[in-house]
Amino acid sequence: MTYDIVIRGGDVIARAGRFTGDIAVSGGRIVALGAGLGPADREIDARGRIVTPGGVDPHCHIEQLSGMGLVNADTFETATAAAAMGGTTTLISFAAQMRGERPRDTVAAYAERARRGARVDHAFHFSVADPAAPHFHDDLMALAAEGHRSIKVFTTYAIGLGDAQILAVMDTARDAGALLCVHCETDAIVARERARLLAAGRTRPLDHAASRPREAEAEATHRICRFAELTGARVMIFHVTCIEALEEVRAARARGAPVLAETCTHYLFQTEAALDRPGLEGAKWMCSPPQRAPEDRDALWEALARGDLALVSSDHAPYRFDASGKLAAGETPPFDKIANGQPGLELRLPLLFDAMVTRGRLGAHAFVELTAAAPARLYGLPRKGDIAPGMDADLVLWDPGRTHTYGADDLHDNVGYNPFEGHTVTGWPERVLLRGETIVEDGVLHAQPGSGRWIARPEPGAPR
Amino acid sequence: MTYDIVIRGGDVIARAGRFTGDIAVSGGRIVALGAGLGPADREIDARGRIVTPGGVDPHCHIEQLSGMGLVNADTFETATAAAAMGGTTTLISFAAQMRGERPRDTVAAYAERARRGARVDHAFHFSVADPAAPHFHDDLMALAAEGHRSIKVFTTYAIGLGDAQILAVMDTARDAGALLCVHCETDAIVARERARLLAAGRTRPLDHAASRPREAEAEATHRICRFAELTGARVMIFHVTCIEALEEVRAARARGAPVLAETCTHYLFQTEAALDRPGLEGAKWMCSPPQRAPEDRDALWEALARGDLALVSSDHAPYRFDASGKLAAGETPPFDKIANGQPGLELRLPLLFDAMVTRGRLGAHAFVELTAAAPARLYGLPRKGDIAPGMDADLVLWDPGRTHTYGADDLHDNVGYNPFEGHTVTGWPERVLLRGETIVEDGVLHAQPGSGRWIARPEPGAPR
Amino acid sequence: MTYDIVIRGGDVIARAGRFTGDIAVSGGRIVALGAGLGPADREIDARGRIVTPGGVDPHCHIEQLSGMGLVNADTFETATAAAAMGGTTTLISFAAQMRGERPRDTVAAYAERARRGARVDHAFHFSVADPAAPHFHDDLMALAAEGHRSIKVFTTYAIGLGDAQILAVMDTARDAGALLCVHCETDAIVARERARLLAAGRTRPLDHAASRPREAEAEATHRICRFAELTGARVMIFHVTCIEALEEVRAARARGAPVLAETCTHYLFQTEAALDRPGLEGAKWMCSPPQRAPEDRDALWEALARGDLALVSSDHAPYRFDASGKLAAGETPPFDKIANGQPGLELRLPLLFDAMVTRGRLGAHAFVELTAAAPARLYGLPRKGDIAPGMDADLVLWDPGRTHTYGADDLHDNVGYNPFEGHTVTGWPERVLLRGETIVEDGVLHAQPGSGRWIARPEPGAPR
Amino acid sequence: MTYDIVIRGGDVIARAGRFTGDIAVSGGRIVALGAGLGPADREIDARGRIVTPGGVDPHCHIEQLSGMGLVNADTFETATAAAAMGGTTTLISFAAQMRGERPRDTVAAYAERARRGARVDHAFHFSVADPAAPHFHDDLMALAAEGHRSIKVFTTYAIGLGDAQILAVMDTARDAGALLCVHCETDAIVARERARLLAAGRTRPLDHAASRPREAEAEATHRICRFAELTGARVMIFHVTCIEALEEVRAARARGAPVLAETCTHYLFQTEAALDRPGLEGAKWMCSPPQRAPEDRDALWEALARGDLALVSSDHAPYRFDASGKLAAGETPPFDKIANGQPGLELRLPLLFDAMVTRGRLGAHAFVELTAAAPARLYGLPRKGDIAPGMDADLVLWDPGRTHTYGADDLHDNVGYNPFEGHTVTGWPERVLLRGETIVEDGVLHAQPGSGRWIARPEPGAPR
Repeated sequence: MTYDIVIRGGDVIARAGRFTGDIAVSGGRIVALGAGLGPADREIDARGRIVTPGGVDPHCHIEQLSGMGLVNADTFETATAAAAMGGTTTLISFAAQMRGERPRDTVAAYAERARRGARVDHAFHFSVADPAAPHFHDDLMALAAEGHRSIKVFTTYAIGLGDAQILAVMDTARDAGALLCVHCETDAIVARERARLLAAGRTRPLDHAASRPREAEAEATHRICRFAELTGARVMIFHVTCIEALEEVRAARARGAPVLAETCTHYLFQTEAALDRPGLEGAKWMCSPPQRAPEDRDALWEALARGDLALVSSDHAPYRFDASGKLAAGETPPFDKIANGQPGLELRLPLLFDAMVTRGRLGAHAFVELTAAAPARLYGLPRKGDIAPGMDADLVLWDPGRTHTYGADDLHDNVGYNPFEGHTVTGWPERVLLRGETIVEDGVLHAQPGSGRWIARPEPGAPR
Repeated sequence: MTYDIVIRGGDVIARAGRFTGDIAVSGGRIVALGAGLGPADREIDARGRIVTPGGVDPHCHIEQLSGMGLVNADTFETATAAAAMGGTTTLISFAAQMRGERPRDTVAAYAERARRGARVDHAFHFSVADPAAPHFHDDLMALAAEGHRSIKVFTTYAIGLGDAQILAVMDTARDAGALLCVHCETDAIVARERARLLAAGRTRPLDHAASRPREAEAEATHRICRFAELTGARVMIFHVTCIEALEEVRAARARGAPVLAETCTHYLFQTEAALDRPGLEGAKWMCSPPQRAPEDRDALWEALARGDLALVSSDHAPYRFDASGKLAAGETPPFDKIANGQPGLELRLPLLFDAMVTRGRLGAHAFVELTAAAPARLYGLPRKGDIAPGMDADLVLWDPGRTHTYGADDLHDNVGYNPFEGHTVTGWPERVLLRGETIVEDGVLHAQPGSGRWIARPEPGAPR
Repeated sequence: MTYDIVIRGGDVIARAGRFTGDIAVSGGRIVALGAGLGPADREIDARGRIVTPGGVDPHCHIEQLSGMGLVNADTFETATAAAAMGGTTTLISFAAQMRGERPRDTVAAYAERARRGARVDHAFHFSVADPAAPHFHDDLMALAAEGHRSIKVFTTYAIGLGDAQILAVMDTARDAGALLCVHCETDAIVARERARLLAAGRTRPLDHAASRPREAEAEATHRICRFAELTGARVMIFHVTCIEALEEVRAARARGAPVLAETCTHYLFQTEAALDRPGLEGAKWMCSPPQRAPEDRDALWEALARGDLALVSSDHAPYRFDASGKLAAGETPPFDKIANGQPGLELRLPLLFDAMVTRGRLGAHAFVELTAAAPARLYGLPRKGDIAPGMDADLVLWDPGRTHTYGADDLHDNVGYNPFEGHTVTGWPERVLLRGETIVEDGVLHAQPGSGRWIARPEPGAPR
Repeated sequence: MTYDIVIRGGDVIARAGRFTGDIAVSGGRIVALGAGLGPADREIDARGRIVTPGGVDPHCHIEQLSGMGLVNADTFETATAAAAMGGTTTLISFAAQMRGERPRDTVAAYAERARRGARVDHAFHFSVADPAAPHFHDDLMALAAEGHRSIKVFTTYAIGLGDAQILAVMDTARDAGALLCVHCETDAIVARERARLLAAGRTRPLDHAASRPREAEAEATHRICRFAELTGARVMIFHVTCIEALEEVRAARARGAPVLAETCTHYLFQTEAALDRPGLEGAKWMCSPPQRAPEDRDALWEALARGDLALVSSDHAPYRFDASGKLAAGETPPFDKIANGQPGLELRLPLLFDAMVTRGRLGAHAFVELTAAAPARLYGLPRKGDIAPGMDADLVLWDPGRTHTYGADDLHDNVGYNPFEGHTVTGWPERVLLRGETIVEDGVLHAQPGSGRWIARPEPGAPR
C-alpha cells in the first residue's frame, strides 16, 4: 500500500503518548503511525520538529452581531486565517439567532458565510436570543439530528434568558442530545453593580471588572448546575474565571450533576490589572466575565491539573480599537458602552505550547488534551483532536527552539492590536496541515477561503 | 417592696438554666427571680409545675389574603385565641401588601385589625407584593424607624419577585436595619414540574410534593444566600425542609454570609406520606415547601442540634377544608388549585414540649431557645422570650404529667381540622400569663380581643 | 426573708441577658435576682459597675511537674492569688500522674496541696502518664464516681500515649462518664522537624514554632476525632491554634463525632512573631502548640463566633525566665531544652473583657459564655458560670471606665514576667466575690490559702 | 520495511481511541498502527476480535511469606501462569523484607525466583519489615537508581510501622524518586475491635469484617495523606474499600497532597455478605481491609468514574483452603488465625472487561485506562499499558461473544478455589501476546517459566 503522505521522523505527541516516528496519511486521514511507514507519494521531513494535533477551539465569535449591535471585526475569512496561522484547524463559532428568527434560518445564514469564507474546519453553537421564535423547538431537534449538537444561552446581557426559558432550552437540549453552553453571570447583580459604579462616576475600563463581581459568576454557575441536575441536560459552563465559580463547579460535579466547565487563554495569563491603564487603553483587554486576581488565575491552572476544568478555549471576540469597535460610542465611552472581548484565536496554541510543553507547566500531554483532544471529544467532533489511525490529518509541526516576541499588530485577524504584545514564546507552529493539506508553512498562509468544511457532530457521549 | 404577683415554687426553665423558686412580677414585668421573694399582692402556686417563657411564633398568617385570592380562615381574634391556648404569647404575622399599595397603608390596615382583635402581643413582617408601589423605599425606612424591622419576600407564587427586585429590597432592608425573610423556591422550576405533572394527569394532593422538588428549594436558597453576601442584608431563610437546602445554608454560613434559617413544626413530624391519603383528604396537610422524606425530617432535628437552624416557627396558614378554603376551586380540584397551609399556632409548643422536654430530644434548654428565646432575640422583640429580670411576665405553667391526645377538631382557631389528630402529647399548658395577666387557665380563655399589644422592634443585632 | 447580702443596682450580664438590678445572696449562693430585693444584712453598691459571673478557667498548670522534670513556678497559693486578682473564681488544674503511680494516689496528693493552698474553687483533670500503672482503670472509675470527671492525655512529649493506649483510656473515660481532654500534636512529626532544625543549627525560640508544624496538629486532631467516633468517648480538643486543625474539628462535628474544642487566650492575641526577639527573649512566649500566622489567629475568633470552638482557657503554664524555669538547661539553651508555657490565669478575663465587652468583638454575651458559662457547663461544674438563682455567688464587679496598661511584672503569680507587657485594657475587675465572700477589692487580695473548695462534678451531659 | 508480525483488522482499543486496523510488530514492540501495514513475516488475523493492551497488575503477592508465617500458595511459575491466562502481561509483586535483612538481599532473592519462574514481565515493590536493618536507606537509594521505584509499608499487622518509621521511609522514598504504597488500617483500632469480638465469642469469618472497621481505614488514610503533604513523598493508598476512606482521599487531593489511590477487583463486586456463609466457607473470601456495604461498593465505581481512584489491581493473595493456607491453624480457627486474601490475577481482566466493555459500565476507554494504562504510567513501567508505536507488543485478543461461567476450580493459580464461582462473563481473552510472542492461545499456555523479564523503572512523573 502506498500512502499519500508520510510525515517522517517527528517527535509526535498524541493523546496516547509520545513517540518518534512516522505518520502516514491517505485520503486526508491518518492511516498509520509508527516506524518504517511507506512508501508514500510525498514525504514531509519532521525530524527535529514536535508534532501535535491541530488545535480545536470550541469557543470563538466570528462575523457575529454583538449584544451592542456591532458586528465582530472578523469575517470567517480573517478569523480562520488567524486560526490557521496559530495552529488551530477546527473551531466552533456561533450561529447567533436574531429575535423572531427561526433557528434553521439562523444556522443556514451562518453556514453559508462559513462555507464561503472559512479556511479551517468548523461547526456552530446555536446561540439563543429568542426561544419564542417560530419553530424553535422543532428546528433545534432537526438541527441536532443533522449534526448541530450544541446550544448557547446567556444569563446576562440583553439576550440573557430567564429561568423558565433556560429550563425549557435545557429540556430541548437534552432531548436533542446537544450540549448546552452557558455564559454564567447573574444579570441582576451586574445591573446593580453597574448602576452603583456609574452613579459614583466610576466609568473607567477597570471599573468594568468591579461591575461584574465574582458573586454574579458563582451564583449563576450554581443556578445552572442545579437546573442541569433537574433536567438532565448536559451543560458546559463557559469561561470560568474565579475561585468561587470553580467551587460551585466542583460541588456540582461531586453531587453528580452533568456539568463540565472550561476557561479561556487570557484568564490563565491576565488579571484585572490588565484593565488598569491610562485613559481608555485598558478597553482592549475588557472581556466578560472580567479577569480576576492573581490567586484566581493560579486556581484556574490548578483546576486544569485536577480535571475540574476540561479544556481551554480562546473566546476570541474581535473588536477594533476604533469607532467600528471598542470606541463605537464615542472617543471617551464609559465602560458599559465598550464592547467586550479580545482576540485570541491565533494566540491560544502558541501561548499554551510555550507554557505547557516548552516550560512544562502541566506538561505536553495536558497541552494535547486541553487544546485538542478534550474539545473534540466533549463537543463530539469526530476524527478531530488526536493523532491516531482514523483521525483527520490535522497536524501542527512545531519548531521547538524558535522564539517569538509578540508585537503590537502581528496577528492575522482583523482586530489591529495584540493583547499579548511584548510576551515572548518559545516553540513556533512552523507548519500546519488540515486533512493532509499544508495550510500554513513558514509563516505563509496557503489555506483558501471556503476550503474549511463544516463538521457534523453525532450525539456526544457522557460528560465526564 | 411589695410585688404585684409572686409565682411561687415552680420548676423554672429559663435560658440561663433551671431552678426551683419564685418569680416576682410588678407592672407586668418580671422584676425578680429566686428564693424567698415577697411579699406580693397576689400569689400563684406553681409547685409541681414547669414554668417556661411564653412562646414566640415568628411566622404565621392571620387575616391575610392568600396568593389564590382567599382570605385566611383566621382573624386576629381566632388566631390569637389558638395561640394563647397553645402557650404562645407573642407572634409575628404578615402585613401583606396589595399591588400598588404604599407600605404605610398596608401596615396601618393590618395594625388596626390586630389592635382590635389580637389577644396576644404581636408584630408584623411587611410582605412585599409590589416594590414599585408609591413610596416603597421611604415607607419601609420610616416603618423600620418606627419599629417594623422585618420584611418578607417570595421567590415563587404570583407575588414572587425577580432577582433585581430582591436585590433592591435587600438594599432597603440593610439600610433599614430590617431582617429579610425569604420563601425560597425557584418559581421556574415549580412551574415546570407542575406543568409536567398536570399534563401527565397527576393532580392528587401527593403530586403537590413532586411539583415543588428539593432542587427548587436548594437553588433559591443558594441564590438568596449569595445575594445576602453581596448586599450585606441580613436574611432569614424561611421553612427549610430538606437536606439539600440545609447544605446550602451551612455552606453559606461557613463562607460568612449573613444568613439564618428556620424550620417549622410540621416538617419535624410529618413527611410526604402525610399527603398520600384517599381522595382529597391529603389536601389538609398540603403546604409549601412540601414535607419531604424521613431522612430530611431527621436532618432537620440534627440541624437544630447543631445550630444550623436557629428556631422553629409554626407557619400557621389556616384554610378550612370546605369551599371557603381548601375546596374553593370545587369539590375535586387539582393540587395546584388547593390553598397551601395547615394550622399550627396552637400545636407548636405542646408538640415540641412533649418531644424536647418530656421525652428529652434536644432537651429543655433547646425548647426554650428554639420556641421563645431565639425568635425574640433574632427578630429583636425586646423583653420577650426568656425568664429574667426586666422581661415581660409572659409565662406558661405546664402540668408535666398531663397527657392529651389530639382530636379531629379540638383547636381554637377557625380551621376546623387538626392535622395532628391522634397524636398524643405529655405535658400540657395549664396556665398562660401575658405581661402578668392570666390569659388561659385550665382550658378557659380569658384573653380579650384587643388586649394584645404591638411590639416595636429596635434594630436587631448581628445574625449569629 | 432577710438575705445575707444584696448587691444593688449593677449592670448585670448573665447568660440570660443583661439587666440593671439587684442580686441577693444567702448561704453563699445567689437566691434572687431583680428589682427591690431585700432586706439584707449587708449591701454592696454596684451602681456604675458591670457584674459578670466569676471566671471559670478549665485549663491551667499548677504546682505540677513538667515533662522536663521542672516544677511549675506556681504553687496553688500563688496561682490562685493570680486567678482571684484576675476575676477567676474556679479553675481546673491537673493531677499529673507519675509513672507507676496509681491514680488515686495522684489525685490525693494534688487534692491535698490544693486543699491547703487554693484560694479559689477548683477541680482536677487526671493527667495520664502511665495507663499501665496499678489500679488504673478501677481508680479512674472510682474517681469519676466521686466527681473527678475529666482526664487528660497527650499525643506528644515523653508522656504521649500510643494509639492503643489512647483508645483504652477513651473506653475508660466513656464508661466513667468523664470528658477526655487531648493535647493533639503528632509526636513523630514534631520529632522529625525538631531533628531537622537542630541538625541545621536552627536553635532559636522562633525555631520552636517551625518544629511543631500545623500538619502535626491537624493530623493528631483528626486521629483523635476518629477515635472518639469509634469509642463514643466525649472529647475536648485542647488549644486549637490553626486553620487546618479547625477544619478537622468542623468536619468531625459535621460527621457527628462527640468532640468539642477550645482555644487559649494567647492564640487570640499573639502570632509566631512573638517568638522572634533578640537572643532568648522569645522564650518567654514559647508554648505548644506554637502561635501561628495572623490568619490563623483571626480564624480562631471566627470559630468562636460560629461555635466551632466552645470556650477560651488560659493554659497557664508558669516558668520563670531563670535557671528555675526557662533557662534550666543553661544560659543559651536550644529551643528544645526550654520549658513551654506562659502565664495567663490573671490575664484571661481582663484581656477578653476589653476585647469583647468594651470593644464589642463577639459581644458581652459571648464573654460570659466563653469564659464562664461554657466551661462550667461542659466540664460539669454545678452552680458555676452564670448569674441565676441557685448558682454560687461567684461574681466580678468591673469598673468599665478604668484603664490599665500591663507592666513588666505586675501579675500575682510567681512567674516574674508578663507576656502582655505594654498591652492596655479598658475595664478592670474591681471586686471579686467567691460564694458571697469578697476575695478581691480595689487591688487587695483577701482570699486566704485553703479557702477555695474542690468541686465534685456529676456526669456531664451531651457535648453539644 | 518488512515487519515481524502484523495483527490485522482488529477492533483496537487504545488509550488514544478505538479504530479498526492493523498493528505492526518488530523486535517485540509495536512499531506501527493503522491501515495497510505490511508486509510482515507473519500475520495474525484479528478480524472480529477486540484488541486491548495486556493487563498490568500492580498489586499481587507471589511466593511471599505472609504475616502469619505462611508462604503464598503460588510460586512465580503458577501465579504468572494465571496472570497470562487472564490477559495480564505485566505485574508488580512484592520483595518482602525479613527482619534484619538488608534490602539489596531481599530484592536479589525475589528477583532470582522471578527470573527462573516468571512467565510474564514483572517488577517489585520493596515491602518494608525492618527499617532499622543494615544499609536500609542506602540500599533503597541504590535499588531505586537501578529501577526499583516503589516501596510498600503497612500501618497494621506485625510488620506495621510506627509513625516515625513511616515518616523516615517517606523521606527515603521521596529522595529515591520512588512511589510509596501504603496499606492503611490503624492497627490499634483493629486490635481493639478484634479483642472485643473474640472476648464476645464472635470468631466467624464474618466477624473479620467487624474487626477492621471503616474508621480504621479512614483514620490511617488521613494520617498517611498528612504525612505525604509534610514530606512531599508520592503515595499510593492501596485497596480503598469504603466511603469514609474515599472522602479522606478526595479531601487530601483537594488540598494538593501528592496522593493517589487504587481499589481492587473484589471490592467492586463483593460485599461483606460474601463472608456470611456456613461454617468456615466464608474464609475463602476473607481479605483486608474487608469488603463493605453495597453503598461502598457503588461509591468505588463512582470514584473510578471521577478519577478519585486511579486504577484497579487484583491484590492477588493466594492461600489454599486447607492446612497449607486458610486452615493452617486447625480445622476451626477463629477469624484472626485465618490468612487474609483471595486469588484474583486471572480474574481481574475478564471480570472488568465484561462489566466495562461488554456491558458498558464506565466504558472501553476506562477499561484500558484502569487495568493497563494507568498502572503502567503511575508506576513508571516504560513501554507498557497501551497500544501505540514504541510500546511493547503486549496485547490481548478478546472474543467479544464468548461467554464463560466460572467453575469451582478453573483458575491456573495454585489456590484450588475460585471466589467468583458461578459468575458469568461475556468476552474472553482468546489470545495473549507478550512482546510479540503468543503466550496464550485458545486456552493453551505457551509462556515458559523464566520467559518474563524484569522491568526497570525510571523515576516516575507527577502523581496526577
